[in-house]
Formats: sequence, C-alpha cells, structure tokens
Amino acid sequence: MSIIEPRTLKGFRDFLPREMLQRQALMDTARTVYQSFGFSPIDTPALELQEILSGKGSEETDRQMYRFEDNGGRSVGMRFDLTVPLARFVAQHIGQLGTPFKRYHIAPVWRGENAQRGRYREFIQCDFDTIGTRSIMADIEMILVIDRLLTKLDFERFQIRINNRKLLNGLLANLDLQAHSVAVLRALDKLSKVGPEAVVKEMVDLVGVSSQAAQQVLNLCQSSGESDGVLSVAESVVGGNELGREGVSELRQVLEATSAAGIPSARIHLDISIARGLDYYTGTIVETMLSDLPEIGSICSGGRYDNLASLYTKQDLPGVGASLGLDRLLAAMEELNLVQQAQSPTQVLIAYFDPLLQANYLKFGAILRDAGLNVELYPEPAKLKKQLKYADQKRIPAVLLIGSQEIENRQAQVKWMLDNQQDNLPLTEDLAAIIQCFTQKLSGSGADRQAVGLQ
Amino acid sequence: MSIIEPRTLKGFRDFLPREMLQRQALMDTARTVYQSFGFSPIDTPALELQEILSGKGSEETDRQMYRFEDNGGRSVGMRFDLTVPLARFVAQHIGQLGTPFKRYHIAPVWRGENAQRGRYREFIQCDFDTIGTRSIMADIEMILVIDRLLTKLDFERFQIRINNRKLLNGLLANLDLQAHSVAVLRALDKLSKVGPEAVVKEMVDLVGVSSQAAQQVLNLCQSSGESDGVLSVAESVVGGNELGREGVSELRQVLEATSAAGIPSARIHLDISIARGLDYYTGTIVETMLSDLPEIGSICSGGRYDNLASLYTKQDLPGVGASLGLDRLLAAMEELNLVQQAQSPTQVLIAYFDPLLQANYLKFGAILRDAGLNVELYPEPAKLKKQLKYADQKRIPAVLLIGSQEIENRQAQVKWMLDNQQDNLPLTEDLAAIIQCFTQKLSGSGADRQAVGLQ
Repeated sequence: MSIIEPRTLKGFRDFLPREMLQRQALMDTARTVYQSFGFSPIDTPALELQEILSGKGSEETDRQMYRFEDNGGRSVGMRFDLTVPLARFVAQHIGQLGTPFKRYHIAPVWRGENAQRGRYREFIQCDFDTIGTRSIMADIEMILVIDRLLTKLDFERFQIRINNRKLLNGLLANLDLQAHSVAVLRALDKLSKVGPEAVVKEMVDLVGVSSQAAQQVLNLCQSSGESDGVLSVAESVVGGNELGREGVSELRQVLEATSAAGIPSARIHLDISIARGLDYYTGTIVETMLSDLPEIGSICSGGRYDNLASLYTKQDLPGVGASLGLDRLLAAMEELNLVQQAQSPTQVLIAYFDPLLQANYLKFGAILRDAGLNVELYPEPAKLKKQLKYADQKRIPAVLLIGSQEIENRQAQVKWMLDNQQDNLPLTEDLAAIIQCFTQKLSGSGADRQAVGLQ
Repeated sequence: MSIIEPRTLKGFRDFLPREMLQRQALMDTARTVYQSFGFSPIDTPALELQEILSGKGSEETDRQMYRFEDNGGRSVGMRFDLTVPLARFVAQHIGQLGTPFKRYHIAPVWRGENAQRGRYREFIQCDFDTIGTRSIMADIEMILVIDRLLTKLDFERFQIRINNRKLLNGLLANLDLQAHSVAVLRALDKLSKVGPEAVVKEMVDLVGVSSQAAQQVLNLCQSSGESDGVLSVAESVVGGNELGREGVSELRQVLEATSAAGIPSARIHLDISIARGLDYYTGTIVETMLSDLPEIGSICSGGRYDNLASLYTKQDLPGVGASLGLDRLLAAMEELNLVQQAQSPTQVLIAYFDPLLQANYLKFGAILRDAGLNVELYPEPAKLKKQLKYADQKRIPAVLLIGSQEIENRQAQVKWMLDNQQDNLPLTEDLAAIIQCFTQKLSGSGADRQAVGLQ
C-alpha cells in the first residue's frame, strides 16, 4: 500500500504539547479574568448560513471566507470572526438573555488570507463584550479587564491608549467635515505609519479638506503629554459642538475612573490620533501596546458601538467590547521570556523498575493524584537511563525511584531533574512525607507553573 | 433595510451561558484528569486535505464529511473525528515527540448526519491515547482514567465493561472461523439489541457458520458472573490457541491491576460480548455504562489498536485510548441532577446606588477580585428592584449593597439571593470582613461550585 504524505493544509498548523500548553494557559487566564468581571462564556457554530456571514463583513472578509454548498444544497460559510456570530446570536436570543448581557467567546475563526504574509488561515479569537447598556461604566470596565488580563500574564510595561470617536466626529462637525468623516479618519489612522505631512496631503488631495482644517484636525491628534492638557486642547477645538463635548466628558470620566480603580496613570494614555479604521465604533476606542515591543502593534483593541445587530433585528443593541490577539500576545510572551517550555503537564514520573512492584506503582500513582499532583507511570520496565532521558525530554521536574530495595528500606528516592539533585524520603503507606515534599517543591515554585505552561 | 432572519444552520446550535458553563466545567474536569495521568494537550486544524481524511474513514464518514474546494483549488474537508487527525499528526511528528506519546484532544468535529436522528452536525470529542507502547500498563491506565473521570464528575454508579479482541479472535481461530471474524463480530455486537437467537441465526444464515460453532461462540459471550469464573470458561474454549490465551492473560492482568489501583470490583465488569464493531481494535476493549441510565449506551469507549497510522507512515505505531461522549454525558448529568443551573460566573453583584460612589464601587470590585471572587458591578444606577431581579435571573448568589448611608455607618449589607437572607458586615478599607464572609460562604459550598457550573 502506498503511503499518503502526512501534512497539514497550507496556512494551517498543528499545535504540539509545548505550544498547546502555552496557548491553554493563556486562554485559561483570559477566561478567569473575563469571568472575574462576570462575563459569561458562549459558543456558536463554526458554520453559518452565508446570508448571515456576508451581510456584515467587509469586501475583504467576504473574499476570504471559506464558503461552499453543503450536502443539503445550502450556501454556508465558516465564521471569519466572532463579531458577526455575536450579532446574530444576540438578535436571536436577547429576549431570553436580558440586558445587560456580558459575554466572552474564545474560539477559532477561519480566513483564506494570503498565507505568505505570515498569517495563518485558522486562528483563535478571544472577545468580550457588554451588550445592551449605554453606561460609560461598561467602557471603563473594558479597560479594567484589559489591565487585569495583562497584569495576570505578568506583563509589566504596557500602555492602554484611549480615544473617543465622538470627540473626533464633533471636531469634524465643527469644521463642517462630517460628510468626509470616514475618509478623514482613514487618513488619520495612518499617522504613525506615514507621518503628519502625508496625512495632511491625503486629507487635502484625496478628501478635499481645506489645508487649514486638515491642520487643525492634525493638531488635536498630535497633542500629547498630560491628559488634562490634552483634554483642554480637545475642549477648545470642539468648541460648542455637543457631540465633541460629550466625547471630552466621556474621556474625562474614563480617566478618573481607571485611576480610582487603581490603574497606574502611566499605563493609561490619551491618544487622540487612534481612530481604528472601522466605521463601526461610535464612542470610546482602545488599543493596547507593549512598551517593550511596540512594533507588534496593538495586542488588545476594541471600543463602543451603537448598534451591534441592525442586520438581524430592529432592536437597538448598543455595546462595548474588545478582542485579545492571542497569537500576537503569545509571540510577545515568547520574546519577553514570559512563557515556560514545559513539554508535558506531568510533575512526577514514577520510574518502572520491577514488574513485581507494578501494583505498588499503581497505588502510589493514585495516592499522589489524590493529592493534586500530575503523575505519570512509565509504562514498562525499561532501563533507568531511558526513563530518565524521557523525563528530561519532557521536562518533567521530579522522578520517583522505587525498587524492591526501597520498599524494603521504606525509603524512596526522588530525582529532581531541573537541578539534578536527589533526595531520600520516607516511604510510608500514605506517602505523607513524599506528598509534602512534592507539593512544597512543585507548587508555587517554577516547576509547577512550568507544568501548566506559564512562568 | 430589510432584516435577515437570525438563525443557526440546520443541525447546528448555539450554546448560551448556562449550557456553556456546564460544558466548560465538564471539559475542565476531563482536562484535569487527563493531565493528572500525564496526557498532553494537542490541537490540529479543523480543515485537512481530503486525501488525508478520506483515506481512513468508513464509507459513512466519507459520505458525511463536509468537503469542498478552497480558493486555491485544493480539495479539503472538515475533520469528522479526532482519530484520523491523530494518525496524521503522529506520523508527521513522532520523530520529534518520541514514545511513549500520551496526548489528549478536546475539539469540535463535523458530520453532515441526518439531523432528524436527533444528532448534531457539530459536536465535541474528548479523546485520550497512549501511542508507541505495547505494554498492558497503558491499557490498565485507560481504565484508571475513565474511573477517575467519572468519579470526579460525581457519578457513583457506573460500570466499565472490559473485553479483549484477542480472546474472541483466538476462539474464532480455534473454531476455524478466522475468515469470517468481522462478520461474526458484527453479529455478536447486536447481542444486547436483538437477543441470542437472532445472533445465532445471523451467524448461520448470513456468515455460514455451523450452528454448533455459533452456539459455542455465543456461550462464551453469554458467560457472566464472577470474573474468575468467566475467565475459566474463556480459558477452556480457546484451548491451546496462543492468541486466545494471550487475551485471557491480558484480561486477568487488567482485572488484577485495576483492583490494586483501588477501583471497586463492582465497577469493573468482564463482558465477553462486547466487540465494538470496528475492525480497528486488536486487544483490550472497553465501554462504560451508567447503571442508572443504561439506555443511553456507552459514555466512554475505546481500546487497543496495533497500527494507528499505517496510511501515513511505515513506522509501527501501536496504541490504546478512549473517547468520552461529551453530549451524551451532559445529557446524563442533567438527568441525574449532577449539573447546576448557573446562568453566569458572577458570585457577587455590587449594586449601583449612587453615582457619587462610583469610584468606591470600582475600588471594591478590584479588591474582591484580588481575593479571587468573580464580581460584577451593575453598570448604571437603576432601581434596586431591577438590579435584584437581574441578580435573581442570573442566579448570582450574593448582592453587595452600599449606599451613602452604608459608607457613613461603615456597614455594608449583603443580600443572599439563594435563601433570601441578609447580613450586615463591617465596611473597612480592605473589605477584610466581607472577603472572609464571601470566601467562606461562596467557596466549598454549593454557591461557588454553582458559579462554575457543576454541583
């Protein structure tokens, strides 16, 4: 029989234990933090009707969608994000769910992107949103979630950049540029990439804004320094425009509240230049930059929107939420040495010396597991060297060595693989001394956290 | 603009918070138990090349596969199980992974089944396997994993049924029926459904077995009672056949070892009649029945196989593993009242009384989260009645009531939603008394476990 070459599809990848333990640890932290604010998990199908998916997305997402006809002749597609499914979900179930509805969703999405750009065609999104309230408290909470999440992941130097769409839109209205707002915002969004002159040029040449107005927009966006100072500039340029004043007031509330909640002011940065391309946002906007790796871009972005589900329901559903860039964040954590290199969840390997002791090994395994340890029994009486090599390759921190001699002397040997030390421990029926030693050495210390994939 | 009707595709479904919390708790338990035996998580792509997927599956899975041509003109399919991807994965990476390789995989699979049979077209599989060892220890461990998993899920009455393919194949060889083994096993597999006479009839009429031989096969399969007695019958019918004797010896080792590891003998049941349809298995076979709900069938099944990945590599890769039926198990847990009805992970709702106290609410939320509690702040100063109704609907166990009066008196009120009691607690800067009360009342007790979705 000829062999089929085992390979993954172009743009797709396998996750081996080391990578999967890291991803799992990160997703667990996200889950724990989201839940600590009362966000509930949901899930939606990987496949949806094409009419659902293609309604809301952009031309780009439409083009990238995996779409086909199923066996029943229905036009279906694989979800390309979690926002469109959320809109459909909320429109369908909001009567039962009630508001405010706080959900998170951690799940894979698929996009037939050009894989040469170094992107994958299957990736996980980690979104959280609060639906059904216009209260600024929900905006504030979005920022608290991001701050707690990054702190829990051991990031120390990061900056949550905040802006408000109302401020920009108010300014544009004041300058009589509402009709061009999307084009102006699009130009502004390139500020950090192309510089101020190119942005003014785009506004003037492509959008038809007067050079004076373009300069005024730019001045606001470039004002930086103390938040209070920036807000004063903002207040003066929006003048009497109500929307703009609302934007300034919301930004002020967000700044005060995040400070009251204990976020150091250095982590919160007012940045009037961020517009986040999408038309979608209508109020608060956030981006999150790692101070040590600004080049990777925002690792958690989001904002407030007025109407999540207008394609699927006439009910007004305002909301606010953000999305964590899992792959980007993992790459950053790898680079900043914030992930550990565990190859297995095992904390203790029981070496298999003697088939006559098999029943003992099984009993010991059960007792150690009852004490909360991850314990693996080497499956056959191989040479000790081979078993230790296995423990070493899997980065298992402890090997428990028990032969007939040890049973007789009531002494077990423990080999600590990370520092190559050895201990003798009393071998009793209930393994009390061994459990005490393992739980001390393997929890709290690096070894235990290594086992779960995070430092 | 006309509205698109928000609906899921036929055969697919959304998971709302209550259902998702239950599923998540079940998957977490599976993960914890798998990891406690040293199984590592992996993941593979949802999409694979059709040549990979259609090689190993049956005609049925081929027909049910979601397959299409992607934008690059490749024939692709959505995975219909986790076994074929595992075979491909192991063939591709075993050099790097080494053996024994112990992995688990919890992930969705897709099958275009006839949804009228009450099945879903998207469902989660929870598989664990040990690859690369022929040691019976791995078979034994599979049973220990199943036992620990069901025990952790609070099942009390269940039975792990064990058989060994070698015993049956040895008996068939002894009766000169090797050539008909698949057909005979297929007939036997129907024993519990159609009864002994129909099975004998199928063997005689369809397979062409002599009625004497058919009766002998059936006698073995129907022998029951004490394991020792059944094994003696088995030993006598396989006679001198080596494969058959190996089967008997393996069953004996499995029985002894599971007993040594502390599994009550009532939970382990030798059942020579189970053959588990598939050709695939070559040694130990297991099924798991809930004693209170036998009608739902096996909730965790598996066995040993000789050659996992022969389609993709010439390397011999024997293995043993089992698959947990997540949906079936959840249905059973629901029926046996083993799941809780939490609608949200929130343990404490901070009621929003007074906008002037907003900074306090934010601070309190942060302090309680630091103490490990899941805390939600109602997002706006709505009427208390509305806020309490919200807590009630979400089954949030505690509501913290702090108005200006409480701040002044340094007393907070706590309303316990489940029993409608109220407490007054000292309101200090660090919330020490409140934290102590919450952690006592909300952890260990039903309320905390309710919050995570499991009783």
